[in-house]
Amino acid sequence: VETRGGLAPGPKNSMTDVPGVRVGHVTLIEGDAVRTGVTAVIPGDDVYPLKYPAGAHVINGFGKMTGLAQVQELGRLETPIVLTNTFSVWQAGDGILDYVLRRAAARRVPVHSCNPVVGECNDSRLNDMAGRHVRASHVVDALDTATDAAVPQGAVGAGTGMVCYGFKGGIGSASRRWTAAGASITLGVLVLANFGRREELVVRGCPVGRLLGGPGAALDPADRKRTDEGSVIVLMATDAALSARQLTRVARRAAAGLARTGTPGNHGSGDFALAFSTARSAPPYEPDEGERLNPFFAAAADATEDAVIHALLQARPMTGRGGFRVEALTAADLRRAREIWARRLAEA
Amino acid sequence: VETRGGLAPGPKNSMTDVPGVRVGHVTLIEGDAVRTGVTAVIPGDDVYPLKYPAGAHVINGFGKMTGLAQVQELGRLETPIVLTNTFSVWQAGDGILDYVLRRAAARRVPVHSCNPVVGECNDSRLNDMAGRHVRASHVVDALDTATDAAVPQGAVGAGTGMVCYGFKGGIGSASRRWTAAGASITLGVLVLANFGRREELVVRGCPVGRLLGGPGAALDPADRKRTDEGSVIVLMATDAALSARQLTRVARRAAAGLARTGTPGNHGSGDFALAFSTARSAPPYEPDEGERLNPFFAAAADATEDAVIHALLQARPMTGRGGFRVEALTAADLRRAREIWARRLAEA
Amino acid sequence: VETRGGLAPGPKNSMTDVPGVRVGHVTLIEGDAVRTGVTAVIPGDDVYPLKYPAGAHVINGFGKMTGLAQVQELGRLETPIVLTNTFSVWQAGDGILDYVLRRAAARRVPVHSCNPVVGECNDSRLNDMAGRHVRASHVVDALDTATDAAVPQGAVGAGTGMVCYGFKGGIGSASRRWTAAGASITLGVLVLANFGRREELVVRGCPVGRLLGGPGAALDPADRKRTDEGSVIVLMATDAALSARQLTRVARRAAAGLARTGTPGNHGSGDFALAFSTARSAPPYEPDEGERLNPFFAAAADATEDAVIHALLQARPMTGRGGFRVEALTAADLRRAREIWARRLAEA
Amino acid sequence: VETRGGLAPGPKNSMTDVPGVRVGHVTLIEGDAVRTGVTAVIPGDDVYPLKYPAGAHVINGFGKMTGLAQVQELGRLETPIVLTNTFSVWQAGDGILDYVLRRAAARRVPVHSCNPVVGECNDSRLNDMAGRHVRASHVVDALDTATDAAVPQGAVGAGTGMVCYGFKGGIGSASRRWTAAGASITLGVLVLANFGRREELVVRGCPVGRLLGGPGAALDPADRKRTDEGSVIVLMATDAALSARQLTRVARRAAAGLARTGTPGNHGSGDFALAFSTARSAPPYEPDEGERLNPFFAAAADATEDAVIHALLQARPMTGRGGFRVEALTAADLRRAREIWARRLAEA
Repeated sequence: VETRGGLAPGPKNSMTDVPGVRVGHVTLIEGDAVRTGVTAVIPGDDVYPLKYPAGAHVINGFGKMTGLAQVQELGRLETPIVLTNTFSVWQAGDGILDYVLRRAAARRVPVHSCNPVVGECNDSRLNDMAGRHVRASHVVDALDTATDAAVPQGAVGAGTGMVCYGFKGGIGSASRRWTAAGASITLGVLVLANFGRREELVVRGCPVGRLLGGPGAALDPADRKRTDEGSVIVLMATDAALSARQLTRVARRAAAGLARTGTPGNHGSGDFALAFSTARSAPPYEPDEGERLNPFFAAAADATEDAVIHALLQARPMTGRGGFRVEALTAADLRRAREIWARRLAEA
Repeated sequence: VETRGGLAPGPKNSMTDVPGVRVGHVTLIEGDAVRTGVTAVIPGDDVYPLKYPAGAHVINGFGKMTGLAQVQELGRLETPIVLTNTFSVWQAGDGILDYVLRRAAARRVPVHSCNPVVGECNDSRLNDMAGRHVRASHVVDALDTATDAAVPQGAVGAGTGMVCYGFKGGIGSASRRWTAAGASITLGVLVLANFGRREELVVRGCPVGRLLGGPGAALDPADRKRTDEGSVIVLMATDAALSARQLTRVARRAAAGLARTGTPGNHGSGDFALAFSTARSAPPYEPDEGERLNPFFAAAADATEDAVIHALLQARPMTGRGGFRVEALTAADLRRAREIWARRLAEA
Repeated sequence: VETRGGLAPGPKNSMTDVPGVRVGHVTLIEGDAVRTGVTAVIPGDDVYPLKYPAGAHVINGFGKMTGLAQVQELGRLETPIVLTNTFSVWQAGDGILDYVLRRAAARRVPVHSCNPVVGECNDSRLNDMAGRHVRASHVVDALDTATDAAVPQGAVGAGTGMVCYGFKGGIGSASRRWTAAGASITLGVLVLANFGRREELVVRGCPVGRLLGGPGAALDPADRKRTDEGSVIVLMATDAALSARQLTRVARRAAAGLARTGTPGNHGSGDFALAFSTARSAPPYEPDEGERLNPFFAAAADATEDAVIHALLQARPMTGRGGFRVEALTAADLRRAREIWARRLAEA
Repeated sequence: VETRGGLAPGPKNSMTDVPGVRVGHVTLIEGDAVRTGVTAVIPGDDVYPLKYPAGAHVINGFGKMTGLAQVQELGRLETPIVLTNTFSVWQAGDGILDYVLRRAAARRVPVHSCNPVVGECNDSRLNDMAGRHVRASHVVDALDTATDAAVPQGAVGAGTGMVCYGFKGGIGSASRRWTAAGASITLGVLVLANFGRREELVVRGCPVGRLLGGPGAALDPADRKRTDEGSVIVLMATDAALSARQLTRVARRAAAGLARTGTPGNHGSGDFALAFSTARSAPPYEPDEGERLNPFFAAAADATEDAVIHALLQARPMTGRGGFRVEALTAADLRRAREIWARRLAEA
């Protein structure tokens, strides 16, 4: 892998390379039309009441991420983050609350307030989203079974029914690790990838979508003018001490990583990014933070780009609601596109 | 009533003076500890899929209003707005979805996506909030029974368990009506008032809170250092054609109305404002919008101030969770404070 | 003085109660029509290259404050702040640059970049603003002569030609001091007050503007429909260690202080607030910052309200461009208004 | 040219394809060390007092664009836009004011206020920026000589001393034209390109910077740790009726166009985008704007990418301050990089 920013991936090339971060999936595949699930990201033990510094950025706000205003005001994350489908946001928030209340009760910590963070994408092309098959208990299960193993990718958890660039999408993850001032720093990214049109897809510079052709599955076959589909959620974790303002700056670089995969950011794509630090400490005051932050910016863009490609390559084809089938992008597809591309470049 | 901006209230002095706007309450008072409810605001028929221009402003983001990012991105409201307690946001969102899906199904309108807007305040001083007694069906009931009558105020609906400036708070409403270019314009405000410390309360310039004294009920009697209480939601409706940007400007004037009632905006108060237009049409391009907008700004501040005072004066005392009792501010209290104030001013 | 938040002013009740902060004025009164000037606020020695944590808030953006985007991105102030009239922003920025380059050269510090912060209000009712009588050298003079004495108030410096609530306005200042965790904390405010209509003015709850009556000078006598006048700049300093995010939260409370003086925030009023810390150190990570921050919020609102009233009461009447005369609000006016008010309250 | 979004360039592939838009340059090359200039963009006749709908987006705020707060509050541009070097912002604003006042006086239009919009990048690697060689009269010249010819590109006007991806940068422009609802729509982009490190450069997917190697000129040869350099300004014009909110959405897509050229958005790069409409009319209210807006988003990203590449390819090598020389990227360089890339892809 040639990575643009010159930084190497962590040992798992996964968000869980950041010590303490755990990820859990619950995948719901039932009958012909249930193709959905839940993905939970836990920053570390006792997120409530300890809280973690966090910052967020709305790239294109056609979508929702609950709890955003409080994260932006206080610069703190006080619950795990849960991803799911658009219509199950409410069960997800309720499930986070169940989880927080149960754990707090066990320790006799009072919970006066709670700000669940839920991100969503629309999986209604493959999933019976209106059936709201995700229940709060599924969310608690995803949280209770979260581990620090390399994050399972593709059509799992919240990614089960997602479509990306007209191919099967879903969950992807990646990481970068570097050394600064003698200390190791890791930044990990997890994406829920459900955005883009096939003709837009670019993989490491190669315009794969146009080269492979085909209609893609991005548009509702019954209504090609629909513009409300898509969305992507980008979550970032780091073990370095960054302030909420700095984490917001890092989160904003998700936009660069997504853009490298080809999309200009379509109207109907609800694109949100959130970054948190597991360090729970304030960085010292520094008049010039540039030399320290630039590697985070490169890592954020690179790992976001990687995570999207991982989501595509790890997904398997799926048939869902109404018999609709979405194909997966394969390594062979990529190779084929690269060969055509090499020929065209040589001829140009 | 001397109103600062020189504009007169509408006939009901209530948000429902705006034609088409309906408000419904479901009040839950059960046993010793259930003191909560739901308030629903419907901009007009068929909010989904017609959508209404809207703008929002976060005054202090320690709280949540779901759907805000999409309202800000698209400048559109596509569901009714529901207010409830902090832990019942999830049932509220799910209830809005039930309502939208049911109505859309009846008309065979497809619902590809949906962005419920839910505002919340923390009623845990009087209510067993952790019991999550609000169900999605209560939300649907509040929506189905919404009317254009003068909004019932005080300890009703979402206001049932709220506390404001150490007195019993809850729902308040007010309106302003004026004529511009020969046409009548109405701006209506509804607040869910659950903010402020007793010593901060100012009523039309009179420092009522300090003059009446008493500890107030704003702070948890068991933990006087708690800083996470409070919050207020301000909703505004107008029948004038305003753009989303202009509605955002109007919504920002809620901050002035709240400030006149005394609070500096405490840390733990999640203060959100949202304004929508029932006109569903774009105002013409105008290089200078000031002469047209200034009355909206005055009306927004005035009606917000009024609505908070209405919430206080219309509320009745309430005893709730753990036998905690919150007194109501009465007209006699106000009179007494005004007399003391008149004496002090005369002596100064 | 009864101050709402219960905090006492510092010894000078002035922004310069914050150790290290210096303020300088250059006042230009020449002939019939030059009524303008410059006010400079220096956070401390060597603001370039040391930089000071800062946060800013736009209350109503009809106006300009240069350098805002960088202050918000980096959370740092790297030059003194200069206030002047709307058309002299450019000489002000150039003057800051002169000052920074000269001082840096003396120490052989390279200046690769520089982000001057200039705030402005429109003094064209009294001043020949189009004549652009402020020169960069005036700005350097204001900077070079800045002292930590109690800030001269009223019609001085940038306040020379300003009009507030139809009375003569200008520069006002105030402070609050309190003790937390055994340490003394000071918050100082300086306003450039040039906003509001006479009928809106409220002084400590008393609707002085309506009670005193009179047309005020807020509107152009030649064009009563003009809506582009006014503006206010609120600058805040504290010696406590606050992060940029926290300083932004403090700056937002300027809106409450302004609202208490009566304005709903008119269309044409460019209202900006900026807060900086002289501590140049990061506060420790704290999951709950509320108990620590609430006094800053109260102090910010209270001192802003005070500073506006000081600006009004310290200003003297002025005749300027075209023979236009603006009267000053006097202590006798206030007394008279208070007496009327006391009678009305007693009769109500 | 393969353009990603499938939209064709306008006849000049330049911002001036938008009817009414004019661009003027003043280039200052004097002696060994003056390498700077001014670029002026005029939306149309009589921008003051007519005003044009506009929206802006701060991609990375290490820099300044004067007037931004007012553009965002009112959604209006009321002056031409001028680009220049960081230290000449003040002369640029003053020059815009000269121009507006002179034209208004000729028509007896009163100018109560004025909000000049100035964007800047740091050209101090090649230019004696501290010498402030741009005068207000240069700005007026650039405005007075602006034409609707294809925009001269490369090292001209404000671009004279700029460096981009370690190569000679400067001014670039591009456009897209399409038909919607039977009407022709044009979107034009102009960039002032002064950002990026050589190793980051990607041209249409090919990692040119890494393939060509070489140290680049992005970093100060005397101080390789400097992180405060760079910046890019992206200006967009369209003849379609878009609201300020919609123009803001379009401006945000500049980030995707820039990201495609390789940069993750470095700390010290002040990256601003502003879009305006020459239509001066409000679009009709539309519940779903997606189908109409998506081509604007694709066009904005595509034309921004193009404009950066044009800036690089049109620039000529330059030697400036201290004998520092910056090479230009040539078509031969691109060909060479593409050949290496084709080989590597074929071998992979």
